[in-house]
Amino acid sequence: MLPLPDAPAAAPAGTLVHQAMQAVTGFIRSERLKAGDWLPGELHFARELGVSRAVMREAFGKLAALRLIDVANGRRPRVSTTDMSVMAVSLDHAVNTAQVTFREVWDVRRTLELRTAALAASLRTDEEAAAILHHARSMTACRDDFARMTQHDVALHQAIAIASRNALFAHIVASFSGLMAETVPVAWKTRSTEAEREGVLECHRRVAEAIADRDAAAAERAMDAHFDDSIRALMGAGYD
Amino acid sequence: MLPLPDAPAAAPAGTLVHQAMQAVTGFIRSERLKAGDWLPGELHFARELGVSRAVMREAFGKLAALRLIDVANGRRPRVSTTDMSVMAVSLDHAVNTAQVTFREVWDVRRTLELRTAALAASLRTDEEAAAILHHARSMTACRDDFARMTQHDVALHQAIAIASRNALFAHIVASFSGLMAETVPVAWKTRSTEAEREGVLECHRRVAEAIADRDAAAAERAMDAHFDDSIRALMGAGYD
Repeated sequence: MLPLPDAPAAAPAGTLVHQAMQAVTGFIRSERLKAGDWLPGELHFARELGVSRAVMREAFGKLAALRLIDVANGRRPRVSTTDMSVMAVSLDHAVNTAQVTFREVWDVRRTLELRTAALAASLRTDEEAAAILHHARSMTACRDDFARMTQHDVALHQAIAIASRNALFAHIVASFSGLMAETVPVAWKTRSTEAEREGVLECHRRVAEAIADRDAAAAERAMDAHFDDSIRALMGAGYD
Repeated sequence: MLPLPDAPAAAPAGTLVHQAMQAVTGFIRSERLKAGDWLPGELHFARELGVSRAVMREAFGKLAALRLIDVANGRRPRVSTTDMSVMAVSLDHAVNTAQVTFREVWDVRRTLELRTAALAASLRTDEEAAAILHHARSMTACRDDFARMTQHDVALHQAIAIASRNALFAHIVASFSGLMAETVPVAWKTRSTEAEREGVLECHRRVAEAIADRDAAAAERAMDAHFDDSIRALMGAGYD
């Protein structure tokens, strides 16, 4: 039997709400529940633990905030499908409050995305290769429409991460979307000449083509060149 | 002016609680608040938004669950120091409910920690190099005490991530601690011969020594060998 997990650190340790949260996560684990499985309701846990329904309601509310359970109005709670969206929330907060810099985020992204590009080149399906090419070409087609170009840029990076066949890479890369959506248009504006802009679009197409060609080394090189360029543009736009 | 961030997706979009959460994160951002800064209290936001204090209390509770703010009993809330502990909670949940496999987590760890080892070799202070060596040697000294050996193992990986001088690497590596604490003793038990066990300890010492020697390539190679061995042991113990 595996040890029980630590309680989510969302309520001060030792409080009734904290104990109630721990009881629910312990139950999910000991019963080996999966995403979508039903949990017993408030009343069951309240009786079991000898706490009030108000305490259980608060514990369920906090577990829902952490996306560990889904609680629809008046229905029994279910185990959530992971989307790591709380990682995105945490990351955005860290950047907005200057606890993590854009340069640090982009260095982590580069590390992860060199690997997802290489894995995608080896493991992608034909449909995935086509979708990745589509996003790269659509960026070029939408070059005069920042909003749509940015959507294709974000979607390209996510499609590559999904094609890496590792759900955790895909979740982590998805958590960068908010910061990308903010910075891509800003970085784009620092590229004032047509040649510079074409260079950026070409970079993305080269990544996509290397993945389509199943050339992992070329995919990694193209992604690396993309990050060199992207980090230079961000720093040029005053992000650090 | 940067766009406002998306609201934390912890309350159903469009609900009053969701709007209240969004108002608080928008305030943190527009006022450029930093960790430790005070926020206005429940009553201020309740009046400003025209919602009840109960709604604001629930919004504050959920923001505290997400570790965006700290709310001590009866005190005004403050902007939280990021610890990315919610990433750990989310990750543990994903693994416990079989939405992400151990193999996937270890592949992501390898990707990140080859890089933190190389960065640490270039950027570590003398104190950090000494602390990293200390943990590697203590693992050998504590080889008959699983719990202490595991603590030094987890601390070694975190000390390397911190020495990489990138706060985000350090936060993400820290979020793997719970899964490491669970698997290190299990993997250790699959190493039944003295030679195998000595090999594992030697691997950790080689990483630490390469970082002390400022040899980034050797640090990366030693970390890679460590992950090869560690993933083989985990798979041998039935984790996947």
